[in-house]
Amino acid sequence: MAKDRISIAVIRRLPRYYRHLEELLQSGVVRMSSRQLAQRMGITASQIRQDLNCFGGFGQQGYGYNVEYLKNEIASILGVNRLYKIIILGVGNIGRALINNFNFEKRGFQLLAAFDVSEDVVGTDIGGVRVHHINELEAYISEHKPDVAVLTLPRSAAPEVAVRLVNSGIHGLWNFTNIDLHLSDERVKVENVHFSDSLMTLCYRLGEDEK
Amino acid sequence: MAKDRISIAVIRRLPRYYRHLEELLQSGVVRMSSRQLAQRMGITASQIRQDLNCFGGFGQQGYGYNVEYLKNEIASILGVNRLYKIIILGVGNIGRALINNFNFEKRGFQLLAAFDVSEDVVGTDIGGVRVHHINELEAYISEHKPDVAVLTLPRSAAPEVAVRLVNSGIHGLWNFTNIDLHLSDERVKVENVHFSDSLMTLCYRLGEDEK
Repeated sequence: MAKDRISIAVIRRLPRYYRHLEELLQSGVVRMSSRQLAQRMGITASQIRQDLNCFGGFGQQGYGYNVEYLKNEIASILGVNRLYKIIILGVGNIGRALINNFNFEKRGFQLLAAFDVSEDVVGTDIGGVRVHHINELEAYISEHKPDVAVLTLPRSAAPEVAVRLVNSGIHGLWNFTNIDLHLSDERVKVENVHFSDSLMTLCYRLGEDEK
Repeated sequence: MAKDRISIAVIRRLPRYYRHLEELLQSGVVRMSSRQLAQRMGITASQIRQDLNCFGGFGQQGYGYNVEYLKNEIASILGVNRLYKIIILGVGNIGRALINNFNFEKRGFQLLAAFDVSEDVVGTDIGGVRVHHINELEAYISEHKPDVAVLTLPRSAAPEVAVRLVNSGIHGLWNFTNIDLHLSDERVKVENVHFSDSLMTLCYRLGEDEK
């Protein structure tokens, strides 16, 4: 698989394929043409064929895609079955929402622990996850070796904590703080979650009808 | 402006341009070449020129973009300055996080009210926003005519409430419930926020280095 040259734009579409295929599988759909899948996803069939050809295809001409096979292949490309270990920094509203509703385990991740500074929550369990004081961060990482840290702490604290995480060897940051983290270590990957992007897109689409 | 045929992929990139331009403006940057902007955003300069040409350009050859002008033009294309009126359905963790931290007003939206079913919160104010009982939904919409409803309620309640919103005349749904809403009215626009997409992309990028 010539994976090195796959553009990030294609990669970013893969989770959407995965999501739709999972839903199809749950509805009992076994096989689907690229035309049908395209219609469902609101993209073109040629886009789908192009995207999936980056990874070697998976479909047969005139026969379509095997939904389960394709879903598993995409899972394997994305690496979602590697049981990456996760810690959460900050158990405010977003942190709690993720702990309680995100279903990390079901999605192939191990949620190890949470960290906060507030005496009200340190030492308690939220949704079965123990909240540690941030002072214990380095010791905890060195012992448990998490792969990904979720940043759901206040913006002002994010840059300093990010540096501590990276210095402790964490290479994946899932950043909800809406602040751009400038980290010099090239091995560190940051994914930013910007809620506003989708609201702005919604704005645009609402405006289309008024013209 | 030939706006009708702009692909949704281009539209979805505009909020990112907007975000970066806003940050640049705040850092005092007045002018920027497409090459510099591309480097900052991690895309190619030709992609930027292509995207912005969909709307008629905005740059001058060898001179670059005026940051403030470009930001304002993108805001106007997106329609973010229309003061769309918003209501929030469900004040659990995600609903509260949005009310307290999203800065609707600063982003050009008016957050009118929230709705919930729990007696613990109905009648209270959260971050200055009054929480109404969901029973009052139709009467409230008919009086205040909000444009967008944010769905931060439990998945199981989402489909029924979505239908009530649409029947009351709301055409924009910002959906955090991770459930696909199948609404027959073509005027209704739904933007889904899927946290997992970015976590999966992060997974992939972490895996790249291991190969």
